[in-house]
Amino acid sequence: MFTATCIAPVNMALVKYWGKRNEELILPINDSVSMTLDANEMCAKTTISASESFKQNRMWLNGEVVPFEENARLMRCVEGIHRLALANGAHKFPLSWKVHIASYNNFPTAAGLASSAAGYACLVYTLARLYDLPMNEELTTIARQGSGSACRSLYGGFVHWQRGLSADGSDSIAVQLAPAEHWPNMHMLILVVNDARKKTGSTKGMQLGVQTSALIQHRAKEVVPQRVKDLMAAIDARDFESFAEITMKESNQLHAICLDTYPPCVYMNDVSHAIANFVHDYNETVGSVQAAYTFDAGPNACLYVLAENVPRLLAAIQLAFPNDASQSVEYLKGIPVPPVEVKNGLRDVSIGHVNAKNMLKYIIHTKIGEGPKQLSDEKSLLIDGYPLTK
Amino acid sequence: MFTATCIAPVNMALVKYWGKRNEELILPINDSVSMTLDANEMCAKTTISASESFKQNRMWLNGEVVPFEENARLMRCVEGIHRLALANGAHKFPLSWKVHIASYNNFPTAAGLASSAAGYACLVYTLARLYDLPMNEELTTIARQGSGSACRSLYGGFVHWQRGLSADGSDSIAVQLAPAEHWPNMHMLILVVNDARKKTGSTKGMQLGVQTSALIQHRAKEVVPQRVKDLMAAIDARDFESFAEITMKESNQLHAICLDTYPPCVYMNDVSHAIANFVHDYNETVGSVQAAYTFDAGPNACLYVLAENVPRLLAAIQLAFPNDASQSVEYLKGIPVPPVEVKNGLRDVSIGHVNAKNMLKYIIHTKIGEGPKQLSDEKSLLIDGYPLTK
Repeated sequence: MFTATCIAPVNMALVKYWGKRNEELILPINDSVSMTLDANEMCAKTTISASESFKQNRMWLNGEVVPFEENARLMRCVEGIHRLALANGAHKFPLSWKVHIASYNNFPTAAGLASSAAGYACLVYTLARLYDLPMNEELTTIARQGSGSACRSLYGGFVHWQRGLSADGSDSIAVQLAPAEHWPNMHMLILVVNDARKKTGSTKGMQLGVQTSALIQHRAKEVVPQRVKDLMAAIDARDFESFAEITMKESNQLHAICLDTYPPCVYMNDVSHAIANFVHDYNETVGSVQAAYTFDAGPNACLYVLAENVPRLLAAIQLAFPNDASQSVEYLKGIPVPPVEVKNGLRDVSIGHVNAKNMLKYIIHTKIGEGPKQLSDEKSLLIDGYPLTK
Repeated sequence: MFTATCIAPVNMALVKYWGKRNEELILPINDSVSMTLDANEMCAKTTISASESFKQNRMWLNGEVVPFEENARLMRCVEGIHRLALANGAHKFPLSWKVHIASYNNFPTAAGLASSAAGYACLVYTLARLYDLPMNEELTTIARQGSGSACRSLYGGFVHWQRGLSADGSDSIAVQLAPAEHWPNMHMLILVVNDARKKTGSTKGMQLGVQTSALIQHRAKEVVPQRVKDLMAAIDARDFESFAEITMKESNQLHAICLDTYPPCVYMNDVSHAIANFVHDYNETVGSVQAAYTFDAGPNACLYVLAENVPRLLAAIQLAFPNDASQSVEYLKGIPVPPVEVKNGLRDVSIGHVNAKNMLKYIIHTKIGEGPKQLSDEKSLLIDGYPLTK
């Protein structure tokens, strides 16, 4: 029996991926750019064992048995790795051996934070370790076929998913723009928003968008290319103000496209918009752009903020979004934040925005992080090929 | 002393006006199409007196004194009428005589329903009556300079505001597409939504949109022209299904453009989106498109619905948006609706959408209507040139 255990990080899009030109191969209509988040706060963890004695491929996700052969995306990743192993002449064990996979997310799935990117990145990375394949761009084309944005979670720091031009998707790859060390004080506050509404899933939402939005192709062709260039320059120069403006405009445009979809897809709610509004007023009050929001296919806000500005921003958020649990470790998760004396200006901006109590479920403080990593054998989620809790 | 008293209707855009190419002349970046609403439910009423004895121009709006000479838009309308009177050789009394103006809206301004269109249409129409000018397209270019969409309130039925091409705005006129009799059973339910948030005014919102949205020019140039054509054909054929789809897509795209503005302008709230969602599900449940929503620069929903379908739609709305006052005349305003037995299907669609209580302030039932009208002297708002309550 051979076993590998790895973790892979979550990534948060800056220039948004929305819309496929090929549903099966998961080829996007435009480039996207993301930042990888520290795996200490949020990650997927996967163990894969291969053994001659396994009768069938099996998988456990967060402790529950899930379908394997029926999951086309999962099979596509496994087959992609098999092809790569054959091409690389890897012969540690026969490809006919079945695998057992156990995977966990170390963050609540209920939070509505996309877990599939980290999950598929971890799956593909762990398979690659199992078959002794090198980490390279080809792996990103395989992860992409599990979940589009998974290709971006195979690198740390800032990552560029190039849409590619070829029909087979071979040039739709992710590349690293800069490692985490390039901008190590880039932090993030994730505001998890209470929400009960049913949402259109992102796969369905972007499908409908491509079919019905009268604006999505213009965005893909005429707007995104320049924004990618501008964002790359901003990252290169560590220019937070430009970085923030592009990021916020991109988030807004994603949700504009969703609204222009028919029937419309609405992911942000009143609290999300209150947070966006708060960020604009906060930046104006402090006199410089210190926070930038981005929203994915859900109501939660991810705020980019430099480490040195976190305490002040968090204090203002606590004033504007009061919560009965505001000081508990259950409410403030992740990297500890030193308390700060709230200045009058901040109190002013918050007072204009004091929302009803308990609009936020909790807050996660995290930062830029590294790509996937292999862990030692004692971290395995499988014992003799089976999870601790079958 | 000469006096004229008139009423002018509200209009509701189907293809939306959003964005000016000339701020001063109020020239739009795209055509728009609207339906005029019955003045019985909502209208502006204006009396204007001219007298040799008046020392200065004066105006009372809803009983309050408002600035006159300082109001550039108001002055532009008065001067426009003066020019027209000179050109027409109207000499009933000298143009140097000052005027007293009293104007009322017969609907609550608190509702957030645009009153400026009806107000400026009424002002221009009443001035024209005072100076014995004929009703023609030139009047629409004058009303347009008071409030863009006011030009559409000078006609009944369906109205087309053509953007025009000339720099002086002389060809940016409104024309009637079809009178109210063309589609007399076209009704509307206006759902007035409770909302406390501060909003960006529409003048400022569309200014910001033109300056910052990366999508607005594409919309104006590439999307709107075809939609105007398609909507004109749907109106001509009384094809409610096409009419509804274009109307809803237009509303969604207006709010998409607002969201793509930087900083974003958000006019719809969670209740607005719940109504839109309800309408899509309602149409699906009844098996045909019977309702179409449109939202302007506020959270209120205007639902187009044919007269014969009003009772059933209203019953479903009452189930989905329960209200403590649901049966009161204060809650259900306008044209009376006969009660209807609610079928199971409707109960089903409503059950999937039952919202918290009292999300709506009230509901107005109205319908397609005529253009402005002159009233007899006994309806005057001025007595000897002064309002009843000075």
